Amino acid sequence: MTQPLIRRLCVIGVGLIGGSLARALKQAGEVGEVVGSGRNEDNLQAAVRLGVVDRYDIDATRAVVDADVVMLAVPLGAMATVLRDIAPYLSPDAVLTDAGSAKGSVVADVKRVYGVIPPNFVPGHPIAGTERSGVEASFATLFQHRRVILTPLAETAADAHRLIRRMWELTGAEVVDMGVRHHDAVLAATSHLPHMLAYTLVDTLARLDDRAEIFRYAAGGFRDFTHIASSDPRMWHDICVANREQLLEMIALFSADLSRLAEAIRNDDREAILAIFQRAKRARDNLYLD
Amino acid sequence: MTQPLIRRLCVIGVGLIGGSLARALKQAGEVGEVVGSGRNEDNLQAAVRLGVVDRYDIDATRAVVDADVVMLAVPLGAMATVLRDIAPYLSPDAVLTDAGSAKGSVVADVKRVYGVIPPNFVPGHPIAGTERSGVEASFATLFQHRRVILTPLAETAADAHRLIRRMWELTGAEVVDMGVRHHDAVLAATSHLPHMLAYTLVDTLARLDDRAEIFRYAAGGFRDFTHIASSDPRMWHDICVANREQLLEMIALFSADLSRLAEAIRNDDREAILAIFQRAKRARDNLYLD
Repeated sequence: MTQPLIRRLCVIGVGLIGGSLARALKQAGEVGEVVGSGRNEDNLQAAVRLGVVDRYDIDATRAVVDADVVMLAVPLGAMATVLRDIAPYLSPDAVLTDAGSAKGSVVADVKRVYGVIPPNFVPGHPIAGTERSGVEASFATLFQHRRVILTPLAETAADAHRLIRRMWELTGAEVVDMGVRHHDAVLAATSHLPHMLAYTLVDTLARLDDRAEIFRYAAGGFRDFTHIASSDPRMWHDICVANREQLLEMIALFSADLSRLAEAIRNDDREAILAIFQRAKRARDNLYLD
Repeated sequence: MTQPLIRRLCVIGVGLIGGSLARALKQAGEVGEVVGSGRNEDNLQAAVRLGVVDRYDIDATRAVVDADVVMLAVPLGAMATVLRDIAPYLSPDAVLTDAGSAKGSVVADVKRVYGVIPPNFVPGHPIAGTERSGVEASFATLFQHRRVILTPLAETAADAHRLIRRMWELTGAEVVDMGVRHHDAVLAATSHLPHMLAYTLVDTLARLDDRAEIFRYAAGGFRDFTHIASSDPRMWHDICVANREQLLEMIALFSADLSRLAEAIRNDDREAILAIFQRAKRARDNLYLD
């Protein structure tokens, strides 16, 4: 019998991401025990019933005791509180990691609680998810062929970094390293901005007088386009706050480009309109083969 | 042997839409002969080879001769020219229809060519399509369970209207009638605006310095969100021009809403941010069950 990679894993926030990680590691036989924690006891009971965690403790300060790895899979807005709560109870060797969609804010929260960046802290972000949430939505293969971005810091211990990398690789993910600011810029562009556009579009239409009629004629393209507007509002509120600066920068860039397109349409500037559409089509077609 | 609904159908523009209509009517056994026309002879040859049309004439003035129904499935920017060319050659009983994504501009083109609205003209718009184009992309079931909007005018003859309605019903589509301006407003909101947002988003990102890196980390949501940016640039240029007024109005509404969201993010106005996201999620979730 070989030892599992992680003897005891504590997952705080056993939702889609935390639950899927626990499932994947259990399926790989690479975790001895999984302890869950979180605010919602019904959800934690479901997690036990579904076999996602072996046991839970609603009190995170007890749940983290003697864990080798503590995964913070809570909303970004809850990170600071949870970090402050658990800090005194982590075992000295415990590796702390997270799954937050923005990394600068989590790093700042950690620094605020610890005064320094602890060597055993490895910030991470699995680029995966669906519009569903909660442990019932979790599944072991969520991370297969998905990317997980780690943003280790100068202070991060090589051992801790290696352990978290290995943990994610066991879920079938491709793990890459990136700087904190760079991560937040890339995600602002590819994920945070598109979510703002989808939410705004649906909200703009939902406030029109003939919204019922309008939504009746929304066809396939609209469905795909607005899919991400079904995401969890609270989670996305937190992301807006956590990555405010870079998100606002991207919204400003986009708004300026949209104004330019509107101007070209107003002036029937055929060349300008075609140039935008052709550039975009080329970029999109090069990106995917669908 | 019962008579087919249409003895001779002339399709000008044998692409995805025109080709799929011809295929569907042939499959239903409700068309005697299909004659194709268009600018691209290779495409017309392919249409014959694929059995989509029985014959073609690159000269539309000859292709329309003795047709019961003439379908204009050409880009909106080509409608006026084609209408002017074929007008003298249509048989007096021929029913003229189109598949343009905007209706006000086609109606205006028809009025300009004929001086009046001919009773045998039935403007239409099948809400269907993929990002692909050309006859090779056409298939008989494209319109099944899709909506086709007809925008008959006060001048439109009941017989002509009934024939075109029946024609589309035979393809498996649900046919609805709507006013011209209302059609253009609904489509500006649900289709034209989303395409502008998708094109602009991809173009904004494609012009960033670290675009290669950025596109590498674009995940599933981004793929769906930008799918429509792979649509035909020329076709979308024409739609922008054809539905300029209503499209610009929608872009202005959207831009104001996006600015308001940016302002709320800047001020960390939690209530305002959550209200937008929650309203949008509710509207989207009520719309689709995915």
